[in-house]
Amino acid sequence: MERKQLIEQIQKKQSFLCVGLDTDINKIPKHLLSSADPVFEFNRQIIDATRDLCVSYKINTAFYESRGVKGWESLIKTWQYLPKDCFSIADAKRGDIGNTSEMYAEAFFNENSSGMSFDSITVAPYMGSDSVKPFLKFDNKWVILLALTSNSGSADFQYSTTGNDEMLFEKVLKTANSWADASRLMFVVGATRGEGFLAIRKHAPDNFLLVPGVGAQGGSLQDVCKYGMNKDCGLLVNSSRAIIYASSGEDFAEAARVEAEKVQKEMAEALKAIW
Amino acid sequence: MERKQLIEQIQKKQSFLCVGLDTDINKIPKHLLSSADPVFEFNRQIIDATRDLCVSYKINTAFYESRGVKGWESLIKTWQYLPKDCFSIADAKRGDIGNTSEMYAEAFFNENSSGMSFDSITVAPYMGSDSVKPFLKFDNKWVILLALTSNSGSADFQYSTTGNDEMLFEKVLKTANSWADASRLMFVVGATRGEGFLAIRKHAPDNFLLVPGVGAQGGSLQDVCKYGMNKDCGLLVNSSRAIIYASSGEDFAEAARVEAEKVQKEMAEALKAIW
Repeated sequence: MERKQLIEQIQKKQSFLCVGLDTDINKIPKHLLSSADPVFEFNRQIIDATRDLCVSYKINTAFYESRGVKGWESLIKTWQYLPKDCFSIADAKRGDIGNTSEMYAEAFFNENSSGMSFDSITVAPYMGSDSVKPFLKFDNKWVILLALTSNSGSADFQYSTTGNDEMLFEKVLKTANSWADASRLMFVVGATRGEGFLAIRKHAPDNFLLVPGVGAQGGSLQDVCKYGMNKDCGLLVNSSRAIIYASSGEDFAEAARVEAEKVQKEMAEALKAIW
Repeated sequence: MERKQLIEQIQKKQSFLCVGLDTDINKIPKHLLSSADPVFEFNRQIIDATRDLCVSYKINTAFYESRGVKGWESLIKTWQYLPKDCFSIADAKRGDIGNTSEMYAEAFFNENSSGMSFDSITVAPYMGSDSVKPFLKFDNKWVILLALTSNSGSADFQYSTTGNDEMLFEKVLKTANSWADASRLMFVVGATRGEGFLAIRKHAPDNFLLVPGVGAQGGSLQDVCKYGMNKDCGLLVNSSRAIIYASSGEDFAEAARVEAEKVQKEMAEALKAIW
């Protein structure tokens, strides 16, 4: 998906919500366990219930890999079911030397090879340019690079001061923006500290930011919008657990819709600041 | 596998060779393509030809994921075939927030869940402590954390000077050694610059180091041993392409054995320095 199309979807749906399919077979409603593929069945119903309220789905690959071949089958079926007007994210946090990142790109971007072709993949920056560039060789595919994450461990290295009095996450933003422009490159920026977005926007004024940590991890949507929104919106705010596990009963999909709608309404309000 | 057992294997086999199964279906000998699972068949023959010459096998997950469900099946079959006296490495470069790293740990350490239980997994450090610790909850399982990699992109961030005049990779070594001791934690240290091991050993005197980059990537085994060996050997030197693709003909397994044997002999010589 191109940047222009993504912005059009945000305008049309008045939403910049990304629904995170962190689907854990131990947490889905019990009545689904008799389906042939309970994880896919759960995802299918969540997608049907939320597709007009969100502009993106993020699939957290760990939850699928943990179940081996069965999980990989659910992952592929879920990718196939994703609506084509939604920006799809393989939240895989990959990254390795060039010839290996090429293989990861085949896994998530080449349907002929793996059965899947997401719009984007999350990538860890530690190994530098040649670990990221193989993902950028694919037309219309995006890299979403980790910059500032929302977990407590982000303090261990991401805030380390490097040369020129800038922190490591700032160096990641600046350096990566020399590898690709904002039409191909997004950043993961955690939402637990709203003012953190000021430093981010200094180095990445145009990039879209994928923002986890709103909801279950404690971040505030208002703060994210206040400090992080740019003239094209420039935000994809992810919510996983708060939406997909809103109910553990047979009404899980309706309950997910109710939660997604709350967030979408708040987003429509926030978008009035720019459009 | 415990550290003691690993050291015993090194002493017994007079080798600290790790064979990397970066198996690319486009590079394996053509006569294997008629097998039911050509990638597994290639791996099986490589393992049979090298198992007495190496102490470890490293499976690069990207090469399997790139082929979707089929690839994941080859990965599981290969894991099942690995000799139990060899230290097994899932070279997966994973790492995410706590609840997600828990799922990656299930994928690579819990056979009941995923069909695989490697001795160790490679992990990227960028997200810090809570992205690494879930892997350490499993008995006798190891984390092999990226410290200094052998690719050109390592210069982008790993050599950044952080506080106290230390470089990022040094901070990673020091910080991670407060999370676990050398009986559970190894580091990935690239071999392209032998003297680099001096800085590594300052901060990680006891840890085993997984050393890629010898062979196809240009590192020298003598330099690695000179600067990197400790009293327990403390090295697992990986070779992938130089061994597994030594021949593209029907003699590929014999050719792999010849290459592995050359390296093993050099290693036996190097081990005289400590035993």
